[in-house]
Amino acid sequence: MNEKTVRFSETESSDIVHPSDANAYGFVFGGHLVSLMDKTAGIAAMRHTESKVTTVAIDSLDFVHPAKVGTILTIRASVNRAFHTSLEIEVQVTGIYPGEKESQLIANAHMTFVALGEDGKPAAVPAVIPETDAEKRRYEAALQRREAKKALRR
Amino acid sequence: MNEKTVRFSETESSDIVHPSDANAYGFVFGGHLVSLMDKTAGIAAMRHTESKVTTVAIDSLDFVHPAKVGTILTIRASVNRAFHTSLEIEVQVTGIYPGEKESQLIANAHMTFVALGEDGKPAAVPAVIPETDAEKRRYEAALQRREAKKALRR
Amino acid sequence: MNEKTVRFSETESSDIVHPSDANAYGFVFGGHLVSLMDKTAGIAAMRHTESKVTTVAIDSLDFVHPAKVGTILTIRASVNRAFHTSLEIEVQVTGIYPGEKESQLIANAHMTFVALGEDGKPAAVPAVIPETDAEKRRYEAALQRREAKKALRR
Amino acid sequence: MNEKTVRFSETESSDIVHPSDANAYGFVFGGHLVSLMDKTAGIAAMRHTESKVTTVAIDSLDFVHPAKVGTILTIRASVNRAFHTSLEIEVQVTGIYPGEKESQLIANAHMTFVALGEDGKPAAVPAVIPETDAEKRRYEAALQRREAKKALRR
Amino acid sequence: MNEKTVRFSETESSDIVHPSDANAYGFVFGGHLVSLMDKTAGIAAMRHTESKVTTVAIDSLDFVHPAKVGTILTIRASVNRAFHTSLEIEVQVTGIYPGEKESQLIANAHMTFVALGEDGKPAAVPAVIPETDAEKRRYEAALQRREAKKALRR
Amino acid sequence: MNEKTVRFSETESSDIVHPSDANAYGFVFGGHLVSLMDKTAGIAAMRHTESKVTTVAIDSLDFVHPAKVGTILTIRASVNRAFHTSLEIEVQVTGIYPGEKESQLIANAHMTFVALGEDGKPAAVPAVIPETDAEKRRYEAALQRREAKKALRR
Repeated sequence: MNEKTVRFSETESSDIVHPSDANAYGFVFGGHLVSLMDKTAGIAAMRHTESKVTTVAIDSLDFVHPAKVGTILTIRASVNRAFHTSLEIEVQVTGIYPGEKESQLIANAHMTFVALGEDGKPAAVPAVIPETDAEKRRYEAALQRREAKKALRR
Repeated sequence: MNEKTVRFSETESSDIVHPSDANAYGFVFGGHLVSLMDKTAGIAAMRHTESKVTTVAIDSLDFVHPAKVGTILTIRASVNRAFHTSLEIEVQVTGIYPGEKESQLIANAHMTFVALGEDGKPAAVPAVIPETDAEKRRYEAALQRREAKKALRR
Repeated sequence: MNEKTVRFSETESSDIVHPSDANAYGFVFGGHLVSLMDKTAGIAAMRHTESKVTTVAIDSLDFVHPAKVGTILTIRASVNRAFHTSLEIEVQVTGIYPGEKESQLIANAHMTFVALGEDGKPAAVPAVIPETDAEKRRYEAALQRREAKKALRR
Repeated sequence: MNEKTVRFSETESSDIVHPSDANAYGFVFGGHLVSLMDKTAGIAAMRHTESKVTTVAIDSLDFVHPAKVGTILTIRASVNRAFHTSLEIEVQVTGIYPGEKESQLIANAHMTFVALGEDGKPAAVPAVIPETDAEKRRYEAALQRREAKKALRR
Repeated sequence: MNEKTVRFSETESSDIVHPSDANAYGFVFGGHLVSLMDKTAGIAAMRHTESKVTTVAIDSLDFVHPAKVGTILTIRASVNRAFHTSLEIEVQVTGIYPGEKESQLIANAHMTFVALGEDGKPAAVPAVIPETDAEKRRYEAALQRREAKKALRR
Repeated sequence: MNEKTVRFSETESSDIVHPSDANAYGFVFGGHLVSLMDKTAGIAAMRHTESKVTTVAIDSLDFVHPAKVGTILTIRASVNRAFHTSLEIEVQVTGIYPGEKESQLIANAHMTFVALGEDGKPAAVPAVIPETDAEKRRYEAALQRREAKKALRR
C-alpha cells in the first residue's frame, strides 16, 4: 500500500448558512456544523484510503465564533496521521459574515476515521507523508493527542 | 443562584433510525447522531441554567457500535459539573437493533455548553449537586478532563 | 403471548422547536408536530408488541396551544388498550415556551397502530394491563371511542 | 362576508414518494403523509377564507393502503362546511404504484382549521355553498361528525 | 404506442413557501423552486410515457418574480412535444403573495426528460397531440428551441 | 468598481450522494443537484460582487452522467463574464463513483445571477478579467449565448 501526501486527499467545501440551519437566535446549530465537518472529513478519508470509511470518534471540537445566517463557510479537511487502520483528520471551518470581508475561525476539530475492507472489518490504511512544516507539526501533535487520550482512559 | 441536582435537568429522547438518516451501507451518519446528541444535551443545559445556552465544545465523542436503519435509539443527557459559566454534559446513546431485545451502547460524549445572559454574553450557571455514586464519579472525572485538556493545549 | 403493563412501553421524547419547523408566523406546523407524535407513538407500539408496526389511523388529534420557535417539547406516548391486532396509543405533547417555567399542553391525540408479522400481515398483539387509575380510565375510554367510531361509520 | 362554493377553494397537489420519505420497509411514514395533507388542506382553507389559518384538529384520519417508494400521490382538499370561525376540510390521498395504472385510496381525513384575523384571534369565515350531490352529503356529514365529537367529550 | 393529448398528462401541484425554504432575505432559493419544478415535470413525464423517466436537461429557466415566505405556489407542468426518446416539458410556477389576491408569474422553464425502458436504456415515447392553439404554438416552439440549441453547440 | 479575475471568486465544493438525495432507482434527483449547483454558483457570485445576489436564470443545464448513491461530487463554479448588473456563472459537477478512481462529468450549467444593492434593486457588478485561454473562450462564448437567447425570444 503506497504512502500518500497530505495534499493528495485535502478536501474543501463551501457552504452558506441558511435560516433553516439556525436556531431561534439566528446562530447555526452545533449539530449542523458537525454534520458538514463529518461529511468533508469523510471525503478526505475516502480519498486517502480509496475505500469505505466510518467515523469512530470526535477527539475534540471547538466552536470558536458563532456562524450567523448568511455566513459563507469554507470547510477544509486534511489527514494528519495514519495509525494502522485509523486516520486522524483535522477539520477547520472558517466563515465570512454577511457584509464583511475578513474571514473568522468558526470551528476546529480532530476526528478519527477507520477504513473498512470489503468484509466490513477495519482494514490497514496508507501511511501519511507530511511535506510542509505545518503538516509535520500536525503529524507530531496527532501522536501526542492519541497518547493523552489513552492516558485519560486509564 | 440555587444549586441543582443532576436529576433536575436529566433529559431523555427516543428516536428511530430512518433510511434518510443512513449512508449507502445502511448505517447512520456520524453527523446525524451528533445532531441528536447536541439537541438533547442542549435541552438538559437549558433546564439546568433556565437560560439560553450554546454549544462551545465536544470534548470527546466515541461511536461505539453502528446504528442501523430501524434501530430504536434512546439519547440520555445529564449535567456532570458546572464551571462558572460553563457546563460539562454527558450524553449517551443506546439502541435496540430491529428484531433484537438487548440494548447496545451506540455512542458516548462529553460536551461543553455555555449559558448566555440577556445581553448574549456568558453568564454564571448554578452549581451541580451530584447525589448518586455514579454522579459523584462523573463530577470528579469532569474536572480531570478539563485539566487534561488545558495541559494538551500548552 | 404475555400481557404487558402500560409502563413497560411508555416512551418519552424531548425536542426543541427550530425555525425550520415553523411557519411564517413563528408557529410550528401541524404536520411537523404530527410527525413527532407518530414517531414517538410508533416506538411505544414497537416496544409493546416487540414487532414491526404501522400507523392505521389518527382517531383524534387536538392542537391545544401553539408551539413557538424555541419551545422545549416533551412528547409522551403510552398504550391505552389492545384490540386483537391493533393498539390505541395516547400521545401528549407539552411545551415550555422560551423564557417561561410553566409547561403548557400543546397537543393530544389518540392513534391506532397495527402489529405486522414476518409475512407483513396483521398479527395478534399482547393485552394491556392498566395499573393506575388514570390508566384504567383510558383503558375504558378507548373502548368507548372505538364504538363511537364504528357507530359514526354506519 | 360572501359565501363561497366548494369548488372556489378546492386544492390539488401531486407528489412522488422518495426513499427519504419511507421507513425501513419501504413504506411512507404516517407523519410524512400527514404533513402533505396538512399543507394541502391549509392552502384550501387560506383560499376559502382569504386570511391566515391554523390547524386546530385532525378529527379522523385513516391510512387505507400503504404508499410505497415511487408511488405518484395526488392530494385533494376541499372545504366541507364552515362553523362560525372554523372550517371542516376533507383531504383525500390517492396513489398510483410504480408500474401500475390503477389509482388506490391511500388515506382520507377530516381536519379542522380556524381563520385568524389581523390580531391573531379567531375570525369569522365565509359560509360554504355545496353544489353537487357529493358536496351536499359531505356538508351534512360534517355537522354529524361535529355533534358526535361533542357527545364523546361529555 | 398510442399518441396522447397534452391534457392527458398535465400535472398541477400546490405548495406554500416555508421559512425553511427561504434565504436570509426571506426569498425562496432558486434550488428549492427547481426541485419543485423538476418533481412536477417528472410526474407529467411519467404520466405521458407510463414508464420511468430521468431529467436530462433544463433548456431554460427564468426566475421572474421572487417567491416570499407565505406565498401560495401553483406549479403546472405539461408536455410540449416528443422527440423519439425524449420529451420537452413546460413548467410554470405562479404565486399569490400573503395578503394579496392577484397571482404573479414566479418562474417558467423548459425541461427535457428521457423515458427509460426496463433495461434502464432510453426508450421510445408516445407522440404528443396538441389540441388548443396554445398547445400548438408550444409544439412548434419546442422544435425551434431544439434546433437553436443544436446550432449553439456547433 | 475594480475589475476582478476569474480566479478571485472561483468556488469549489465537495459532497457525497446520500440515500436521501436519491430516487427509487438509486440515482440523485435533478432537483438536488441543481440545489448544490445554485448554492456553489451563488457563493462565487457573492465573492465576485461582494454583495447580495439572486439567481435570475438557468440558461442551460445538462445532466451528463447520473450520480449514484455513494458518489463523491466536486462542484466548481466560476464567473464567465459580467453584463452591467448580471453575471454568467459556469458550474461543473464531476463525480467519482463508489469503488472507482476515474472522475466522470455529472452535470454542466450556465446560470445568470444579478447583484442586489442595499435597496434590493439590481446594482452594477465588477467586470471580469479572463486570464487563461479557457477563461477567454468562456468569456467570448458567454456573449454568444446571451445573443442567441435574445434572438430566440424574438
